Amino acid sequence: MSVRIGIIGTGAIGRDHARRIAQVLAGGTVVALADANPAAAEAVRRDIAPGAEVFARGQDLIASPSVDAVLVTTTGATHEPYVLAAIAAGKPCFCEKPLATTATAALRIVEAETALGRRLVQVGFMRRYDAGYGALKDAIARHTGRPLMVHAAHRNQSVPGDFDTPMAIHDTLIHEIDVFRWLLEDDHVSARVLFPRTTSRSHANLRDPQIVILETAKGVVISVEVFVNCAYGYDIQCEVVGENGTARLPEPMAVQTRTGARLQNDILTDWKERFIDAYDIELRDFLQAAARGTVAGPGAWDGYMAAVTADACVSAQALAGEAVPISTPARPALYD
Amino acid sequence: MSVRIGIIGTGAIGRDHARRIAQVLAGGTVVALADANPAAAEAVRRDIAPGAEVFARGQDLIASPSVDAVLVTTTGATHEPYVLAAIAAGKPCFCEKPLATTATAALRIVEAETALGRRLVQVGFMRRYDAGYGALKDAIARHTGRPLMVHAAHRNQSVPGDFDTPMAIHDTLIHEIDVFRWLLEDDHVSARVLFPRTTSRSHANLRDPQIVILETAKGVVISVEVFVNCAYGYDIQCEVVGENGTARLPEPMAVQTRTGARLQNDILTDWKERFIDAYDIELRDFLQAAARGTVAGPGAWDGYMAAVTADACVSAQALAGEAVPISTPARPALYD
Amino acid sequence: MSVRIGIIGTGAIGRDHARRIAQVLAGGTVVALADANPAAAEAVRRDIAPGAEVFARGQDLIASPSVDAVLVTTTGATHEPYVLAAIAAGKPCFCEKPLATTATAALRIVEAETALGRRLVQVGFMRRYDAGYGALKDAIARHTGRPLMVHAAHRNQSVPGDFDTPMAIHDTLIHEIDVFRWLLEDDHVSARVLFPRTTSRSHANLRDPQIVILETAKGVVISVEVFVNCAYGYDIQCEVVGENGTARLPEPMAVQTRTGARLQNDILTDWKERFIDAYDIELRDFLQAAARGTVAGPGAWDGYMAAVTADACVSAQALAGEAVPISTPARPALYD
Amino acid sequence: MSVRIGIIGTGAIGRDHARRIAQVLAGGTVVALADANPAAAEAVRRDIAPGAEVFARGQDLIASPSVDAVLVTTTGATHEPYVLAAIAAGKPCFCEKPLATTATAALRIVEAETALGRRLVQVGFMRRYDAGYGALKDAIARHTGRPLMVHAAHRNQSVPGDFDTPMAIHDTLIHEIDVFRWLLEDDHVSARVLFPRTTSRSHANLRDPQIVILETAKGVVISVEVFVNCAYGYDIQCEVVGENGTARLPEPMAVQTRTGARLQNDILTDWKERFIDAYDIELRDFLQAAARGTVAGPGAWDGYMAAVTADACVSAQALAGEAVPISTPARPALYD
Repeated sequence: MSVRIGIIGTGAIGRDHARRIAQVLAGGTVVALADANPAAAEAVRRDIAPGAEVFARGQDLIASPSVDAVLVTTTGATHEPYVLAAIAAGKPCFCEKPLATTATAALRIVEAETALGRRLVQVGFMRRYDAGYGALKDAIARHTGRPLMVHAAHRNQSVPGDFDTPMAIHDTLIHEIDVFRWLLEDDHVSARVLFPRTTSRSHANLRDPQIVILETAKGVVISVEVFVNCAYGYDIQCEVVGENGTARLPEPMAVQTRTGARLQNDILTDWKERFIDAYDIELRDFLQAAARGTVAGPGAWDGYMAAVTADACVSAQALAGEAVPISTPARPALYD
Repeated sequence: MSVRIGIIGTGAIGRDHARRIAQVLAGGTVVALADANPAAAEAVRRDIAPGAEVFARGQDLIASPSVDAVLVTTTGATHEPYVLAAIAAGKPCFCEKPLATTATAALRIVEAETALGRRLVQVGFMRRYDAGYGALKDAIARHTGRPLMVHAAHRNQSVPGDFDTPMAIHDTLIHEIDVFRWLLEDDHVSARVLFPRTTSRSHANLRDPQIVILETAKGVVISVEVFVNCAYGYDIQCEVVGENGTARLPEPMAVQTRTGARLQNDILTDWKERFIDAYDIELRDFLQAAARGTVAGPGAWDGYMAAVTADACVSAQALAGEAVPISTPARPALYD
Repeated sequence: MSVRIGIIGTGAIGRDHARRIAQVLAGGTVVALADANPAAAEAVRRDIAPGAEVFARGQDLIASPSVDAVLVTTTGATHEPYVLAAIAAGKPCFCEKPLATTATAALRIVEAETALGRRLVQVGFMRRYDAGYGALKDAIARHTGRPLMVHAAHRNQSVPGDFDTPMAIHDTLIHEIDVFRWLLEDDHVSARVLFPRTTSRSHANLRDPQIVILETAKGVVISVEVFVNCAYGYDIQCEVVGENGTARLPEPMAVQTRTGARLQNDILTDWKERFIDAYDIELRDFLQAAARGTVAGPGAWDGYMAAVTADACVSAQALAGEAVPISTPARPALYD
Repeated sequence: MSVRIGIIGTGAIGRDHARRIAQVLAGGTVVALADANPAAAEAVRRDIAPGAEVFARGQDLIASPSVDAVLVTTTGATHEPYVLAAIAAGKPCFCEKPLATTATAALRIVEAETALGRRLVQVGFMRRYDAGYGALKDAIARHTGRPLMVHAAHRNQSVPGDFDTPMAIHDTLIHEIDVFRWLLEDDHVSARVLFPRTTSRSHANLRDPQIVILETAKGVVISVEVFVNCAYGYDIQCEVVGENGTARLPEPMAVQTRTGARLQNDILTDWKERFIDAYDIELRDFLQAAARGTVAGPGAWDGYMAAVTADACVSAQALAGEAVPISTPARPALYD
């Protein structure tokens, strides 16, 4: 009953998912590996999945009859053809974000899946599987009443020198873009961006921080501070304000100490630790749905909507606070 | 050595300040009272300040040689002539906010004081005397580094039915407008207003909540949620984000209980309790400075700047997110 | 490479562990089941482990060559013979607490394992696998300096009517008894019990709450409030005070809401949810060690030490605050 | 209507109270000063109370017709005769703790006051005036149900080298001894003391920390950690556990910052700051009651009960955890 998994892309993320399937989670077996760098695939086979077959080409891995489901963990630019091939083969496919590097490409995936009439694509928006966001969604249902506003912050301790202003949308804000659609059960209809003075820790190509303001179809105004050189740690904040009250995303678990005239706890500095449990849970969800020949989590439509919204945010970066409308085709019934 | 105080306006606030001077604070004696309703003045004399003289006209109270300093706690529309008279008489004058109901009138007070060349006017922006804001200002100096962003919330449980959209600026946001100038040692240069969907607890003349975005001369972007029918309590939130980290306004002191499967503490519902200690301290500061023939706290220039900024915010309410510039004359040297 | 697991005892806990191995965790397969009630074993086979063999007798399950490792999840009184049989068979054995119902029986298991010279027994003290306790142990190493005192609370919302005063030690405090030995790397040397006035929610056979005071070999004084009818929820508290400062066990993750004049978050009421992740992790640890033919977690010596300490606490209940010494043989080298 | 105050003892505390009356609080005037060191009294006159008369002898100050009420802020050993003289003179008297250095002497004051039949003595137990303790008392009434247990901690950063084991009762625990009687409306009936291993920061004459366990007439068990070389700050903790739930003393107001991978706030290190507002409020209460010729706060009976309980704690220090009963005469009706 174990789902036979093929992994295309065995860099850091692909290798980590291989470890999850082989050593952490019930329900899957890594049977096939492929990477542009064959040595990387071989290393994963040797260290983690001794029984796996190494394919030279991802397309062959997808086609192999010994593979039930596929993980696409290559660089973003190569996602589209692999995902389309998995759809064509009728095999469940977990694709790391972004689904594709353009909204047009993402829409092609949506159309292929819609044409098939069956959901086969899960996108790696792991925050939907975070226990804290889950509890926040539950609190909206139980406590806050109709949401009116959201204020959020996405802060990274620092980013490499080649990180630029649009990347703060495509690589950073992208998680908020998706998770707020899910949290609020609502769609973004406009975006604007404001630039406070830039931290002296940034450089010419990166205006940091920035404040992105999204408005939803229901009229919720979401303000997100994106600050990728915040210096002090990796910190994700979110408060929802509704008609009856507010709810706040929990802080990560931490021991509070009292030493040296300070009451304190550690703040994480590594983003990988922040959602470490969510990665396990998203992949377990994929394995369980794949065993039934389908997927259940964030899908191709979500990947498309995130891409369209991110494009609007990047456009808005040039417009000094002016709103950019976000328009999309109607949601296909497959995604209801 | 007790400062002899005359109070013009003996409604709820004037009466409460009379009580502070007579029963709580060292350094002052209420020697004179005036009110448009003489019975109100008489009642304060009888209950709180038995030795005080009741004047029919505020101007006569100001002129009285037995009065060293004046409190103006009448309705806002009448502040200007009393404050100008106090300046003309060379007497320290504590004026409840607003300093005047128009920026033009406030500027006339500034000009009168500047012409005299001596500071005599304190405006009742009590938040500058709140221990929490004081600690926050200290944390900016010690911990956060250069401020880049501020996110704040001003939430009232509910407001009367005649409270309208501009009042949420003039009566509510006005405190944030002033306290952020003081906190950041910076001036507002533009304002914009966004309207999320309106709570069902509001009505046709009040778009509630609203998000006011102020930009400062140094480039700090301040977003303030103003929500006057938030339903759950009176709640003032403020977080400053700087180059090195963040600092948050403390919550009011409260006992945490564990009962009925809830870890909880009370939230205040009455705004008067939130800054109750700050009222004492601002008035003590006034009494101590008045004993030296001057004032030390927020002054006429601050009252004027608040009025100009509030006017810009109200203008911005009609402009769907567009920024309204705030322009003022240069600050007179008297206020350096 | 999957460890073949046999489970003896398929009540609630055994069934839940079967689910973990079959559906949640990598590394194990449930191949054998046994229960005094054969229908219960059949039900687990049918619902969770279709390929498993059902044995009439636990001893036969242990002896089966198709079983690599054993879970003993029967009632406490039957643990000893199964654990001894697993040791005799040289098979890793996970035994739910208590290891045995008397200290004498627990010592027999220690002696059997010591005679064999190889660790094969893990006792189900799951708190050692809780992320919060792990972080607390880390904080002791990094922050508090030498521990001097611990104050803890173990509060249950309510207990059944047949729960009596000694059960609050054997069923409730037992977790603290073990986890403090691990946390402090120290042994208990005396116990005393104080009885505050009894809650009106208790009954004649249950003096509730009680305060148990343990002293360790290094001189740490541990006070534990055991309150099994605390009414408000399931709540586990622990603060360690060391020479340099204090550290506190984290609260469970919860969303903080502001509604109805209350800042609040839920408190758990069900003990099963409090350590739900720890159960997964302890069993993963067992599976990983069993694959190497050994065990790594809390062992037979820990089970014995817990039994001896619990007996001392129960003796102390009759002594009005007087200390009862705890004496044990020297720790065998196998457990160093 | 200002109460004319005479202060006997113009060391640090007396001087500070003089400042309060002269510069902070309404309702009192410092008209008389006395000190064993006349220069100290002169300095207070010069700096704070220019109109005051300096007396060579405290008894003469008490007798002076220009003095309405007396503050006794000399060293503890001299309190008794001054307090007795104030009672004899029928003048309200605020006496810093301890009321007297022996329970016998304290009882003589009780008897003098009882004989007079009028309350004239307030003891300086300022915690009863702390807003946090007030809120905690309110939470007991509203939320916790009948108190069953209290756990508290009194931690000082460090103490001078001549501070010894009994002083941790008489100078430190004394505040808890009084405040718990007031908080619980209950009396202590026994005391025991446990000694964890001593911090390496202490010395031969000071066993530090110690755990004092008090039992009340109603059966509440109070455990108080007294740790006067805790190294990290001045920290006062208190949790009450009742039949329906728990309530915790609020932490002092502090700004929370996020910097350098730490979420933190300052902990006070100076005990004088911790209850700084309470000192103002207790003295205001004294001034207001003195204006009516009486006192309202903690009185002679409370000072006596604290002395008796402290003596029992010191006796218990020698008894290795054994309980020492606390017996007192019945409370005179004057103190009902």
